[in-house]
Amino acid sequence: MGLIVQKFGGSSVANAERVFNVASRVIDTYDAGNDVVVVVSAQGDTTDDLIEKAKEINDRASKREMDVLLSAGEQISMSLLAMAIEKLGRPVVSLTGWQAGMNTDINYSRARIKRVVGERIQLELDKRKIVIVAGFQGINKYDDITTLGRGGSDTSAVAIAAALGADLCQIYTDVRGVYTADPRIVPEATMLSEITYDEMLELASAGANVLHNRSVELAKKFNVNMEVLSSFEKVPGTIVKEENTVEKMLIRGIARDNDVARISLVNVKDAPGKAFQIFSILAKKKVNVDVILQSIGRDGNKDISFTVATNDLEVALNTLNANNSIIGAETIVHDDNVSKVSIVGAGMTADPGVAATMFEALYDADINIQMISTSEIRISVLIDRKDAEKAVKAIHKKFELHD
Amino acid sequence: MGLIVQKFGGSSVANAERVFNVASRVIDTYDAGNDVVVVVSAQGDTTDDLIEKAKEINDRASKREMDVLLSAGEQISMSLLAMAIEKLGRPVVSLTGWQAGMNTDINYSRARIKRVVGERIQLELDKRKIVIVAGFQGINKYDDITTLGRGGSDTSAVAIAAALGADLCQIYTDVRGVYTADPRIVPEATMLSEITYDEMLELASAGANVLHNRSVELAKKFNVNMEVLSSFEKVPGTIVKEENTVEKMLIRGIARDNDVARISLVNVKDAPGKAFQIFSILAKKKVNVDVILQSIGRDGNKDISFTVATNDLEVALNTLNANNSIIGAETIVHDDNVSKVSIVGAGMTADPGVAATMFEALYDADINIQMISTSEIRISVLIDRKDAEKAVKAIHKKFELHD
Repeated sequence: MGLIVQKFGGSSVANAERVFNVASRVIDTYDAGNDVVVVVSAQGDTTDDLIEKAKEINDRASKREMDVLLSAGEQISMSLLAMAIEKLGRPVVSLTGWQAGMNTDINYSRARIKRVVGERIQLELDKRKIVIVAGFQGINKYDDITTLGRGGSDTSAVAIAAALGADLCQIYTDVRGVYTADPRIVPEATMLSEITYDEMLELASAGANVLHNRSVELAKKFNVNMEVLSSFEKVPGTIVKEENTVEKMLIRGIARDNDVARISLVNVKDAPGKAFQIFSILAKKKVNVDVILQSIGRDGNKDISFTVATNDLEVALNTLNANNSIIGAETIVHDDNVSKVSIVGAGMTADPGVAATMFEALYDADINIQMISTSEIRISVLIDRKDAEKAVKAIHKKFELHD
Repeated sequence: MGLIVQKFGGSSVANAERVFNVASRVIDTYDAGNDVVVVVSAQGDTTDDLIEKAKEINDRASKREMDVLLSAGEQISMSLLAMAIEKLGRPVVSLTGWQAGMNTDINYSRARIKRVVGERIQLELDKRKIVIVAGFQGINKYDDITTLGRGGSDTSAVAIAAALGADLCQIYTDVRGVYTADPRIVPEATMLSEITYDEMLELASAGANVLHNRSVELAKKFNVNMEVLSSFEKVPGTIVKEENTVEKMLIRGIARDNDVARISLVNVKDAPGKAFQIFSILAKKKVNVDVILQSIGRDGNKDISFTVATNDLEVALNTLNANNSIIGAETIVHDDNVSKVSIVGAGMTADPGVAATMFEALYDADINIQMISTSEIRISVLIDRKDAEKAVKAIHKKFELHD
């Protein structure tokens, strides 16, 4: 018995039947004596439909108004879920982002949660009500509606769990948990029963779509125990927490990220502060830069390459071209036909042979590596997109991660 | 130059083309130097679609959750309208009911506006922004979303006009203004250039669908000048205000109301306070009673008949039957195949022949009158529904209201 936050995504509430499925999962937890807060995304294609409606009118609509529009999506799904729970005879109340005290910063469309003022949620829990909260949305200091961007509903759930001191934050998805690799690419991939925050973070930022890294970062910061599990099957999922109780595996998982494009600034003058200059210009436009490679300078020049998310590519190129009088690159080229493949595992720090084994697997599969980036517990390579699935399979096999 | 509140209904913003039509009407007013507040309803069938979604899940959903659901409709339409205005290059901001300070009482689904806290609207107007406000919705003292029920958006518009001291509150509709009779029934009906609040109130409660009487009551209370006009044609409409400057017409208009059913309590014991007892029982269930007829008692018994709105009929009958041990009627019968036909005009008080002329028109048309009710400036009759159109035509002709 305790307080459990449960988050259900858009596909879990896509139609009336699924809404009732979610309602019964929630009620199981409630009837076992727990307090339950449910965070819900917009139904199935609602968000896409609303974006379509907006584009029909103005394809450069302000982010403020887009947030007003999109936040209606969760308002619909949360009230429908509340009605299903009412139908099943349990006390329930649904709350929008502002009602639930989801205070964010002022950045429309990609706001960050600053604070969850949990009084209203707690008030309703104290009445033994199931509390449904709209995911993905909040309110800024001007009393304007904001949305949290990608992975927003997961982040909402973790933020609420942290604010209320929940015992567990369950993220229901259409997969059973976190796997050693995407089971659609590697059918023999193993589901993990536990994973650490750091490993999950690396896997998430390496393109494993199961959890967004913002939510994992927040969970790590406030030490919120998360569980990734299936909306449809009643089986235990993967627990994400500080320390694994199971023996450390060398490699925890392999991820592929197609949402990546490479930009290269060719023959930039090799002066101090050049990289800082470039990346601060991009940061001002809120372009996140990932893998960075800087060639060793020769003849007073160097090449700087880096990756960005595909939907930031246009902004990044425009920004760089507009500022090239300052940057001074001879040419600015890009390639959006690349993928990033990463291996993650807390055990790899102790074993210098991991990188070599990974590169050997790629060599055996005749795959060329364009860029390499590493962290304590992750190694990522940038390769041709056409080779990405082959790479995942080859690495998975090489490290013997199969079930 | 002044402050103008403009309200557009759901059919006026039903699709992208119409949204742009509304945007250009708004901008015309704005570019002429006026401050503009726009109140907008949900698009076309949105509300019905949302009700359908709810029914699929729970046909007895709580009113609180229905209000959460339905209020998403205006949130969608208001942001789309804002995007259209952005596209046309004017500064704009959209506000939900709670953002706009539309404070209501606690009655979900039929809340009444208690106060409009206009600070936020004024703040945006001071920045010379066009301000769009979601109609039909507000917020109660528990910070819960409420909706205003029928005619809600008109009421929102008038309440804002009153709170901000607007110079004019324009209600855009799919007709050109207020007519002497429904032009679909009487093609020769005349459009009125002006009408008083009282006349409009009587016409509205008599079934003229052009304005809801709640909005007119509010306009009268705060002396807000209203104009009813067409969304689609740029022609002046009907001004609703305190006093007419034109000569008083004997009859201002004729209205028909099909949303009416008759209930008769047969052989009720003729005791003091009986009518009070019956109608207070119904009032507790929020059933509004309209035309009331009480027969002269005989043998210590009397019959009491009255009309209710058709969607209150079931509740009314259930309530009366459940309480009949107290009421003591021999039988409770009803007829939902009736219509109310009314004539309205401030001039009629001075002319005792008006009622006689109306009854003569009905007699000539061979129409039987079931019940009669009168006010200072209105005479209503309850007749068979099949005779209603014939009655409107006959009366319109008799009073020579044709163009």
